[in-house]
Amino acid sequence: MRIFENLESEVRGYIRSFPTIFNKAKGAKLTDEQGVEYIDFFAGAGTLNYGHNNEQISKALVEYIQNDGIIHGLDMATTAKKEFMQTFDSLILKPRNLEYKLQFTGPTGTNAVETALKLARLVKGRSNIVAFTNGYHGLSQGSLAVTGNNEYRDESYISRINATFMPFDGYFEDMNTLKYFRKFLEDGSSGMDLPAAVILETIQGEGGINVASKKWLQELEAICREFDILLIIDDIQVGNGRSGEFFSFEFAGINPDMVTLSKSIGGGLPMALLLFKPDLDQWKPGEHTGTFRGNNLAFVASKVSLENYWQNEDLSNAVKYKEKILKQFLEKIAQKYKNEYEIKIRGRGLAYGFEVKNDKSIASELSSYCFEEKLIIETCGSDSQVVKFLPPLVIDEELLKEGLSRFEKAVDRLFKEKKQKLKEEF
Amino acid sequence: MRIFENLESEVRGYIRSFPTIFNKAKGAKLTDEQGVEYIDFFAGAGTLNYGHNNEQISKALVEYIQNDGIIHGLDMATTAKKEFMQTFDSLILKPRNLEYKLQFTGPTGTNAVETALKLARLVKGRSNIVAFTNGYHGLSQGSLAVTGNNEYRDESYISRINATFMPFDGYFEDMNTLKYFRKFLEDGSSGMDLPAAVILETIQGEGGINVASKKWLQELEAICREFDILLIIDDIQVGNGRSGEFFSFEFAGINPDMVTLSKSIGGGLPMALLLFKPDLDQWKPGEHTGTFRGNNLAFVASKVSLENYWQNEDLSNAVKYKEKILKQFLEKIAQKYKNEYEIKIRGRGLAYGFEVKNDKSIASELSSYCFEEKLIIETCGSDSQVVKFLPPLVIDEELLKEGLSRFEKAVDRLFKEKKQKLKEEF
Amino acid sequence: MRIFENLESEVRGYIRSFPTIFNKAKGAKLTDEQGVEYIDFFAGAGTLNYGHNNEQISKALVEYIQNDGIIHGLDMATTAKKEFMQTFDSLILKPRNLEYKLQFTGPTGTNAVETALKLARLVKGRSNIVAFTNGYHGLSQGSLAVTGNNEYRDESYISRINATFMPFDGYFEDMNTLKYFRKFLEDGSSGMDLPAAVILETIQGEGGINVASKKWLQELEAICREFDILLIIDDIQVGNGRSGEFFSFEFAGINPDMVTLSKSIGGGLPMALLLFKPDLDQWKPGEHTGTFRGNNLAFVASKVSLENYWQNEDLSNAVKYKEKILKQFLEKIAQKYKNEYEIKIRGRGLAYGFEVKNDKSIASELSSYCFEEKLIIETCGSDSQVVKFLPPLVIDEELLKEGLSRFEKAVDRLFKEKKQKLKEEF
Amino acid sequence: MRIFENLESEVRGYIRSFPTIFNKAKGAKLTDEQGVEYIDFFAGAGTLNYGHNNEQISKALVEYIQNDGIIHGLDMATTAKKEFMQTFDSLILKPRNLEYKLQFTGPTGTNAVETALKLARLVKGRSNIVAFTNGYHGLSQGSLAVTGNNEYRDESYISRINATFMPFDGYFEDMNTLKYFRKFLEDGSSGMDLPAAVILETIQGEGGINVASKKWLQELEAICREFDILLIIDDIQVGNGRSGEFFSFEFAGINPDMVTLSKSIGGGLPMALLLFKPDLDQWKPGEHTGTFRGNNLAFVASKVSLENYWQNEDLSNAVKYKEKILKQFLEKIAQKYKNEYEIKIRGRGLAYGFEVKNDKSIASELSSYCFEEKLIIETCGSDSQVVKFLPPLVIDEELLKEGLSRFEKAVDRLFKEKKQKLKEEF
Repeated sequence: MRIFENLESEVRGYIRSFPTIFNKAKGAKLTDEQGVEYIDFFAGAGTLNYGHNNEQISKALVEYIQNDGIIHGLDMATTAKKEFMQTFDSLILKPRNLEYKLQFTGPTGTNAVETALKLARLVKGRSNIVAFTNGYHGLSQGSLAVTGNNEYRDESYISRINATFMPFDGYFEDMNTLKYFRKFLEDGSSGMDLPAAVILETIQGEGGINVASKKWLQELEAICREFDILLIIDDIQVGNGRSGEFFSFEFAGINPDMVTLSKSIGGGLPMALLLFKPDLDQWKPGEHTGTFRGNNLAFVASKVSLENYWQNEDLSNAVKYKEKILKQFLEKIAQKYKNEYEIKIRGRGLAYGFEVKNDKSIASELSSYCFEEKLIIETCGSDSQVVKFLPPLVIDEELLKEGLSRFEKAVDRLFKEKKQKLKEEF
Repeated sequence: MRIFENLESEVRGYIRSFPTIFNKAKGAKLTDEQGVEYIDFFAGAGTLNYGHNNEQISKALVEYIQNDGIIHGLDMATTAKKEFMQTFDSLILKPRNLEYKLQFTGPTGTNAVETALKLARLVKGRSNIVAFTNGYHGLSQGSLAVTGNNEYRDESYISRINATFMPFDGYFEDMNTLKYFRKFLEDGSSGMDLPAAVILETIQGEGGINVASKKWLQELEAICREFDILLIIDDIQVGNGRSGEFFSFEFAGINPDMVTLSKSIGGGLPMALLLFKPDLDQWKPGEHTGTFRGNNLAFVASKVSLENYWQNEDLSNAVKYKEKILKQFLEKIAQKYKNEYEIKIRGRGLAYGFEVKNDKSIASELSSYCFEEKLIIETCGSDSQVVKFLPPLVIDEELLKEGLSRFEKAVDRLFKEKKQKLKEEF
Repeated sequence: MRIFENLESEVRGYIRSFPTIFNKAKGAKLTDEQGVEYIDFFAGAGTLNYGHNNEQISKALVEYIQNDGIIHGLDMATTAKKEFMQTFDSLILKPRNLEYKLQFTGPTGTNAVETALKLARLVKGRSNIVAFTNGYHGLSQGSLAVTGNNEYRDESYISRINATFMPFDGYFEDMNTLKYFRKFLEDGSSGMDLPAAVILETIQGEGGINVASKKWLQELEAICREFDILLIIDDIQVGNGRSGEFFSFEFAGINPDMVTLSKSIGGGLPMALLLFKPDLDQWKPGEHTGTFRGNNLAFVASKVSLENYWQNEDLSNAVKYKEKILKQFLEKIAQKYKNEYEIKIRGRGLAYGFEVKNDKSIASELSSYCFEEKLIIETCGSDSQVVKFLPPLVIDEELLKEGLSRFEKAVDRLFKEKKQKLKEEF
Repeated sequence: MRIFENLESEVRGYIRSFPTIFNKAKGAKLTDEQGVEYIDFFAGAGTLNYGHNNEQISKALVEYIQNDGIIHGLDMATTAKKEFMQTFDSLILKPRNLEYKLQFTGPTGTNAVETALKLARLVKGRSNIVAFTNGYHGLSQGSLAVTGNNEYRDESYISRINATFMPFDGYFEDMNTLKYFRKFLEDGSSGMDLPAAVILETIQGEGGINVASKKWLQELEAICREFDILLIIDDIQVGNGRSGEFFSFEFAGINPDMVTLSKSIGGGLPMALLLFKPDLDQWKPGEHTGTFRGNNLAFVASKVSLENYWQNEDLSNAVKYKEKILKQFLEKIAQKYKNEYEIKIRGRGLAYGFEVKNDKSIASELSSYCFEEKLIIETCGSDSQVVKFLPPLVIDEELLKEGLSRFEKAVDRLFKEKKQKLKEEF
């Protein structure tokens, strides 16, 4: 590990939470250089919905490379890109009656977000963007302006681009947060400039697994239509099937003006995509660009993953089935400790949060204990106060249960030690 | 091609210049779906210095995938990452006496630039950044603020982040542009806030192949030291051997505070890297992050390319040798037409520009004619008035000459037609 | 009037509401060129608390001019300035146990606000300022950033300076708006950067006579102390005795870090003043400046007004006495029409609002009808939906009552006509 | 003086340079509380072109006050305002064939500038404003963005509003600075966004008495026309006759789109005015406002000053006559010391600078020595390296000469002492 300490910047993060050198991976398992196996409930922060080294994807990649397929294509036309587009159109857009134009951006989520915000401002001629409390949309300057977490917002470099934060669903007591947003829109002296767009995640992944309800999303869409505001769904972390459907907003029956996709869209490889309604396509040729927007390996991987998982309902059903297992297991733990800890379980699909309301530091401790139990799991929320369950969607039922039982072991051990320590203090 | 017109945004660019669907590639050759072969003098805008599907890289990738190596690693420690870092340190940094910390950013150039600018502002506590006329550093909001080309700067979304543009080497008549910069620094009422950093390319790739001289770079470094300003070299397009040395600034003997790398650093796969002096490493853990900063396939490809090309001087020497061929050929053409056209040839290493001073539209026409001659070549400069020669560094001498002769054919044909047209008008 | 139409910009405003040429004024009366007398319930938007051409002020001004006193002094020391400062200190600050430094800014309210915001940012090293919905602090760029009304915020010139709008007391249903503000402060991912300061009016004059309660102000002060945020009271419109006490915040027992004063502080002449706690005095000499910050005629007028009205409680008592008359009268009208109109009366001291909740256009119509009754009265609120009562503090009881009876006449006439019109429509 | 030290903020400035309490003033003379008389070569930084307590102005003010004329009128129509407008139109605009709309802004220069910049952005729909090195336009946030001096631009509060600084006439060696500006406009990749307007002083008063030539101004106007950029002349300090003509730009025969006026326009009282061409009058009623934009005392004073000084050429001729005296005298001194000091004399009308090129600290020392000689004179320039001569335009020839001889005495004494000190050091 010394090489990392010597050469890599202090900015390094996950390597501190999971201090070992990983070597191989398959499905929901990671193996380190010592051969120790870990169950992966983090899945590359949502990038590995189809698992590590998914058999079909790996096979397709190897074949493509061995055939000297185009690897890097800028935004030139390539066979791989064409086939990805056709597949995405026929398997994802058409069946959902979605008519979107595709824009390939630099292959990072933040680039897709930057692109969406630029286009929204261009089309509407307004500079303000409404984001929501605890929203996370990336850290380049444009995206940072709509990312709430102040750990990323040092005074010296915070983004002074026009953005307004509104309270997310359920943010403040029992307030109807959209009624509040509406008040700011209707009141000409609220201080909020009419926004070009709102941007949000339907499930806030980094923000603490905060789940927007169907009703709230529908009301938000109605507000957007009424006030001529574009609705941007950032589906980078919770799209690609994470919620049980391909897009996380499908359950609500809404029709966003723009959708950002990244993470698992490339089957584990770097790729990002912006979808928007055809009438918004007001770009001049080349107006927004980026070197790696034609990562053809990702197109190949993406096409294979779409073909394997989105031709039928199997994956969706599996996610819903596994969600039940996950949810019941976590609620059981919450129940077990309800006299000592106020534990909140929340989530949708295979994105779940486990929050101990009366002790914010527990989540980070649990992540460490889990690592000792050979389970990779991360925290989220503004104080890292939520344990975040984000297993590959394709995880076996058995492995899921094994992972959960490792989690329970970690919980039991930690809570026991805490009790012991408390006793000793008296 | 209709699938692209129907589904892809109007923003698409290169597909318009090179309207065919590419299928395979090898070295400096691209093949389209009809089996037509093209010589590639564009090389993924500098991403394919080691050629398409470089034999050793492809082999390593296939092997890595087949062994279930970690593909996506966030910023966790992996064997592939460790080995890349060791290789980069021992083959690139150590031999050049460079002591830098490495920061892996999202795998796009603009992300590396955003990171550099944030860190500079954080360390110095100043918001202004000095960029140069015709500089190009990317299109996310932070980078856009230091990118000069107004085709990317629509009023609705231009970045209003503190940045000042100074004239690049040779920008205005015979003015010593650094003396002018110095005057702005020394004059407390110039209106320029003391910058945290200057950022520049030593050869402006998008800006028109404008080459900074050794003397100018040294003088700039001296100014930075004198006024406590960080010197950031953006080596995304012209680093990785493009200039004949690994870093484009080596020839000047300067020691930048930060260096951004991307494009060819990943051996053709998406990767970006920020280097900075250890005393600047003032990040908090996780303060700047991004999903794809651990693209392990790129680490594998990068390691192989470093091992193959940077253990000795062979590549450097080859670049210098081919530069001569390229330069002489272009100058010969310039000479041939000197009575009708004022043609300027300039460049360094294997980055050359061919500019017809008295007719700005010729470059774009030439690019089209070259495409008909089965040569892929792009333009650059604020008015796309410069033909840009950017072949893979590993191109065979023969293929280079063949490409050049196709270029000459295109020139001859175009100029002849223009003459003919002129005649007809009288 | 034609000269105004021909020569003055379309931006002219009040001349449209009160279309006559005024010639003379005394106390609470204005006389136009035709000799018609008007009662003034507007008082220069709060500039004429001591009445037009206040006898003692006029006498002092004439004497000063005739003695060749310094008229314009930049910020040099003058006898008039010295005497103003001594008087302000002994009659206003000392008796209230307030220890403030004085800064003379350009003689407009917006300049005092700009100065306060610059100093707050300088001292705290943070860029964000929290303002409140419906707040009005001026229209130069710094002040505009904290002014809510979008009639002043065209996209082309709105201020993109860091500012966050929080809901004012009573803004949204029965929400405790400060609990909401606190939530944003406590939640590290709310998207609100820790502000350098909050700025507010205790009674929002332009915003619709929204009155902050004692409890709310105390809670706000407590929040500011807890989170190390500066508390700036903008007392430009409702200071100088308007609320019944010299400062509008005295009743709440709070101790702001900064206070802006303008309007009546100069006895009707242009003057503005910033007060701040001594430890905030971190300016360098000359760091914020302005030509007319030494308007000595205003110092003379101010000193006289302080001596005449703030040596004892008489004015305060008179304001409270007249407030009762005003309030009861307005409530009587509200009562009279309660079956047809939902009329809300609110205010403090001699700043009162009369709002017809179910018909926003009535206020402007009333202002016009009042003008016909020879009563000058303006509207406020984001939709000009509130009639604003702002008579000179020194108005005679009789004249106040006469003005009110003119208002009632206007109300009666308008409501009668509306009824008639409604009937006719059926 | 202790009252100032105790109560006034550290920001106080001129009181430090001229440490006495002034009591009375007449014409070009100031008298302090001890009865000591000073000659005033500062004239309220250009506010007192017509002298202190100008007989006719004082008389008119007293009469107006005694007649209970409207003192404060917001932007309502008043007799005094009407008469000012008629007078300004007939004596200033009409004879010069200038067709401008008048906008009365808050009575400070910075407010007029803010208004001009907002209107320019509104009309052109572009955010960038070009200002010039060493320009000074005020310190509220909008104006600060175009003010060059970094003593006013602390990182914590500097204005991050879009502005670009171009080199003023003669700024850099023998470069044609407008050719450079043109290059930035013509080059689409210069990084300068097409500006809505340029703003400049024809003689930079605070910036060091830098004088733009006729040719330069004409060329600048031509550039503005060619590129559809508004031309704003900030005539706050050097308008109102200071240059010998009413507007400082008349000599160049240019026709600015907007002109800001303040300082002497109100005859010594706070007043500011924005002039613009009728087609730019795109404000909505009330869109830009401010409490003191109807300072009727200033309208009265202004009207009297226009009637007394601008009905004929007398004042203009007197200024030109006195300019000769001033210039010759200063050049004589420069000549006297040419072996020891490189002294530069420059200026136009009665705005002159005296700069010792080889010792920047001398100007401030001279100002102190002059004060001891009972001469009030200030410095300017980014390092306060220029002594600025700005006497009232109406100063008697005799008093002018007496003031100059006091200046010479100060110079002689300072230079002698410096020589002596130098000797002692050896």
